[in-house]
Amino acid sequence: MLEALREGQATRVMVAKGIQPSALKELEGAARRAGAIFEQVPRIQLDQALRTTNHQGVAAELPEVPTSELEDAFALAADRGERVLLVFLDQLTDPRNVGAIIRSAEALGAHGVIMEERRSAPLSAVVVKASAGATSLIPIVIVTNLVRTIEQVKERGVWVYGAAPATRDGDTATPEQTDWDRDAGIVIGSEGTGMRRLVRERCDGLISLPMKGRIGSLNAAVAAGILLYCVQRGRDAAATGATNDT
Amino acid sequence: MLEALREGQATRVMVAKGIQPSALKELEGAARRAGAIFEQVPRIQLDQALRTTNHQGVAAELPEVPTSELEDAFALAADRGERVLLVFLDQLTDPRNVGAIIRSAEALGAHGVIMEERRSAPLSAVVVKASAGATSLIPIVIVTNLVRTIEQVKERGVWVYGAAPATRDGDTATPEQTDWDRDAGIVIGSEGTGMRRLVRERCDGLISLPMKGRIGSLNAAVAAGILLYCVQRGRDAAATGATNDT
Repeated sequence: MLEALREGQATRVMVAKGIQPSALKELEGAARRAGAIFEQVPRIQLDQALRTTNHQGVAAELPEVPTSELEDAFALAADRGERVLLVFLDQLTDPRNVGAIIRSAEALGAHGVIMEERRSAPLSAVVVKASAGATSLIPIVIVTNLVRTIEQVKERGVWVYGAAPATRDGDTATPEQTDWDRDAGIVIGSEGTGMRRLVRERCDGLISLPMKGRIGSLNAAVAAGILLYCVQRGRDAAATGATNDT
Repeated sequence: MLEALREGQATRVMVAKGIQPSALKELEGAARRAGAIFEQVPRIQLDQALRTTNHQGVAAELPEVPTSELEDAFALAADRGERVLLVFLDQLTDPRNVGAIIRSAEALGAHGVIMEERRSAPLSAVVVKASAGATSLIPIVIVTNLVRTIEQVKERGVWVYGAAPATRDGDTATPEQTDWDRDAGIVIGSEGTGMRRLVRERCDGLISLPMKGRIGSLNAAVAAGILLYCVQRGRDAAATGATNDT
């Protein structure tokens, strides 16, 4: 309970009247710091809310993030008459990064954010807050196997590019060297270890952002934002070019 | 003390032997959660560390972030033979955003990050961690008056551009419409309210990133990262002679 509060997942905490004053004080303090509503209620109200009498006198309400099906992302792109743009998150565990990426994805016109159920940040209140509300404005698709989902979208003609540091082998391209005038997905790897090998191997290509300093990488949400921006600029340029040609 | 721990500012907590067990337990838990070292020491050791006996038996160590002078940023650009690139932060209060921006500034080749002493996130352990260590790799300049500093750098030939949402008046340009082949600074406004009016009025121009969704803005660190990336791409293009004719 305290852990959920500390991670900012709870939006409301209900405590049964009559619990230990020290526990009450601790919960109230934690709720306040987490920005959650704090209420003392008769124990019977908790029994009803939890549909059991077998509890310790505390209940927390978690926020509801609506999730979607992969189909919804394709439908959104079709509705808008746009080339598909999907964002795959490979085991991102930092809820603020996940929220910021969902925000960027919506603001920069992507059609869906896809992540795995396990080993990802849960869709907590922290994610919702960091997304500035975008969690309810763009399809968020939770899948059991990201690799399989990447294979599925590739079969539907989507080109999937993984964000990766530049290597000496030169097997990565810059966003500017990449043709975005096609259905595309970008994969963002975890903050610590990047994309898993199996995910990386499924990518049609690897994209790296040219670095100029001694710190060789960017925050995951920043890198995702730059990539999404580059994709849309590339599409804008292609659209302008096409208009000029006709 | 607990507040400093909660905000992740402390790197080490020392507690005098003999303080109340409940306080001890609370401090130890908070230190653990903040990732700070926790030590119980004889009271006399605290007296010596704090150079006073007038304390409550608890001391915290804060991380040291080296700060620089404005001159250091100009010197770094000169050393590298590059056009100046400065980042001004106008009252950014979120330490994770400040840290992520410092990281992006270093990684993307800016020469300094300049912020005001008051109403900015303090250079805490959270900032250091979010910067991935960049706080000690790029000049960080703390000034008392950001407006005056902007005026000073303009007098030295730096063009200062503020990041701002696009308006209907069309008084903002996109990064691609802007000539970055000159000494430049970009100003990032606070997460809530953007740039202060006085800061905005000092800018040579306003830059907005084209948005495509219903969320009309990006996280401050994401926006800063995209802008820095665009500046460097613009300079690369100028260097290779592929300048945009505008």
